[in-house]
Amino acid sequence: MRPFNIKALDELWRQKAIDKVNNIAKPKGALGQLEELAIQISILQKSLTPKLQKPCNIVFCSDHGIVEEGISQSPKEVTWQVVYNMLSGGAGISFLCRQHAVELMLVDVGVDYDFKGVKGLLDRKIRRGTRNYLYDYAITEKELEQAIGIGAECVTDIFNKGSNVVSFGEMGITNTASSAMLMTMLTDIPLKDCVGRGSGLDDQGLAHRYEVLKRAKENYQGDKSPLDVLRYFGGYEMVAVFGAMLRAAELGMLVLIDGFIMTACLLVASKLYPTIMEYVVFAHQGDEAGHKHLLSYLGAKPLLNLDLRLGEGTGAVCAYPLLVSAVAMMNEMASFEEAKLTKYFN
Amino acid sequence: MRPFNIKALDELWRQKAIDKVNNIAKPKGALGQLEELAIQISILQKSLTPKLQKPCNIVFCSDHGIVEEGISQSPKEVTWQVVYNMLSGGAGISFLCRQHAVELMLVDVGVDYDFKGVKGLLDRKIRRGTRNYLYDYAITEKELEQAIGIGAECVTDIFNKGSNVVSFGEMGITNTASSAMLMTMLTDIPLKDCVGRGSGLDDQGLAHRYEVLKRAKENYQGDKSPLDVLRYFGGYEMVAVFGAMLRAAELGMLVLIDGFIMTACLLVASKLYPTIMEYVVFAHQGDEAGHKHLLSYLGAKPLLNLDLRLGEGTGAVCAYPLLVSAVAMMNEMASFEEAKLTKYFN
Repeated sequence: MRPFNIKALDELWRQKAIDKVNNIAKPKGALGQLEELAIQISILQKSLTPKLQKPCNIVFCSDHGIVEEGISQSPKEVTWQVVYNMLSGGAGISFLCRQHAVELMLVDVGVDYDFKGVKGLLDRKIRRGTRNYLYDYAITEKELEQAIGIGAECVTDIFNKGSNVVSFGEMGITNTASSAMLMTMLTDIPLKDCVGRGSGLDDQGLAHRYEVLKRAKENYQGDKSPLDVLRYFGGYEMVAVFGAMLRAAELGMLVLIDGFIMTACLLVASKLYPTIMEYVVFAHQGDEAGHKHLLSYLGAKPLLNLDLRLGEGTGAVCAYPLLVSAVAMMNEMASFEEAKLTKYFN
Repeated sequence: MRPFNIKALDELWRQKAIDKVNNIAKPKGALGQLEELAIQISILQKSLTPKLQKPCNIVFCSDHGIVEEGISQSPKEVTWQVVYNMLSGGAGISFLCRQHAVELMLVDVGVDYDFKGVKGLLDRKIRRGTRNYLYDYAITEKELEQAIGIGAECVTDIFNKGSNVVSFGEMGITNTASSAMLMTMLTDIPLKDCVGRGSGLDDQGLAHRYEVLKRAKENYQGDKSPLDVLRYFGGYEMVAVFGAMLRAAELGMLVLIDGFIMTACLLVASKLYPTIMEYVVFAHQGDEAGHKHLLSYLGAKPLLNLDLRLGEGTGAVCAYPLLVSAVAMMNEMASFEEAKLTKYFN
């Protein structure tokens, strides 16, 4: 993997941004998390009149070899079926992107289905699904490079078209299991606190998932480095997200983090490049069991907590209007002087 | 006060709405609180294709006699100054209403200032501020009727213009103290758990506020009925909101509840008309200390928790896009049949 040049944010802008926010005509801190967002975005853009341009949600789609162990409520065919639903505009992410004027970009990096060049889906298929990580690496070294490159390339594309804010989503049956594995391997949080019900496993299904993942963990003989763990347990869509997040931060874009799976991808990225955390906003605490623990590990307090667990970037896009609000606060609210308001605090 | 005819929702529609939501192509329950919202709105509108029309946020503004006890961080003049800031479009609620295409209606029911017929402000001034409730009823019986009528009339107006969803806000220095009094009197939660820092009191200021309110509570000799408590401790803007909420529910409108002060007004309304709770959506858990306890008392789980404490309806309008999302889910997402998706649960 090539190095990514992710710069620490310019702290000179922090005080400038705080000063402006504290001079807006309102009680100090009264706009809570919107103020924190506004400050972060201002520093990132080195501007006291920040702008959000051409928001985009990129959904990477792929299948997972581990699905053959029967650890998911949904059958594997649901991956390609949902891709078609996203293409036709009937999916959860579809109406949310329309509502908030967020561009939706769909990328096939490894779905086990022949889409025959269907329009609206970027064909970057690496292979029809990963290998089963119960027995071996899901992904080869060459494929890992390829998937990172695909993610980075997609972000470069939207950046070149003027985008400065991006979120990511995924479609890939059983990738909550992959996320649980990345989480337990890289945080030392016990596997049982990382594993959840995915799209709706019952108690028996959950117990089976746990047993399979426990065996997979025992079988793993790698060096426990972030990249090795990602290559062993990850999916192509997750590696693409990993590369995409790193590239977005390198380009100075704001990255909105969706639910459990996206947080797991960020975890891997942050292990290699801790400064990426300064570029991200946590959008949503999902309903998948491990997510709360992972957010806590990362010290994150997401904007929303709506019990969503649909994936596709839905939590991120739901939170997007709050970013718009934060920026509008900076650009449209009057200062104490402009409002001729008595400033009743220091 | 005239009786309000607030009907219980038609339960026949609940099952219809649940059936439709469960047949949308996604894991069962995967859109979390958006699904609950969609079901509530569908029942309320008796429609499986619900619509939100002409959303409006009505801000009632007034001053409070208790302010002369020095229990607020902000001086009283901030009330009229903020009214001007809302009129000129530079306030917090201003940019949020613009962002979400929510109409902003401003009503003076008792600000201690002569606005001289300024444009954009509905003049329904009852008196230049209430009386000091440390010693006596803040509001007369006649004024109570008048304020209820003003609130109801404003809602009737927007309803007649086609609105079916409304939120309320307030501007009135020290009305967090009034809200604390309504709360402690009607819930028996100890006063100390109801009192907070308002727009930013320090520890000493908070202690003084508590002492004054404790004495006010001791001085109160009324019958502890909701209306008597409202008349003793309330503000004109809060009584107007109380009347407005009852009228909105009577008209079958959806009511989005902002922060602490609006929740206190709803508390009074719900004591008289418990069915009003079926018409409301809790938008935001504010940063004022008592709000969390009050929400818990009402069994509410708000959509947002962004540490806002600005008032004006800002929390409610921030949450409005989530209502839009819920309705869009009902109208725009494909069913399992339409998406040709394997239904992997019962």
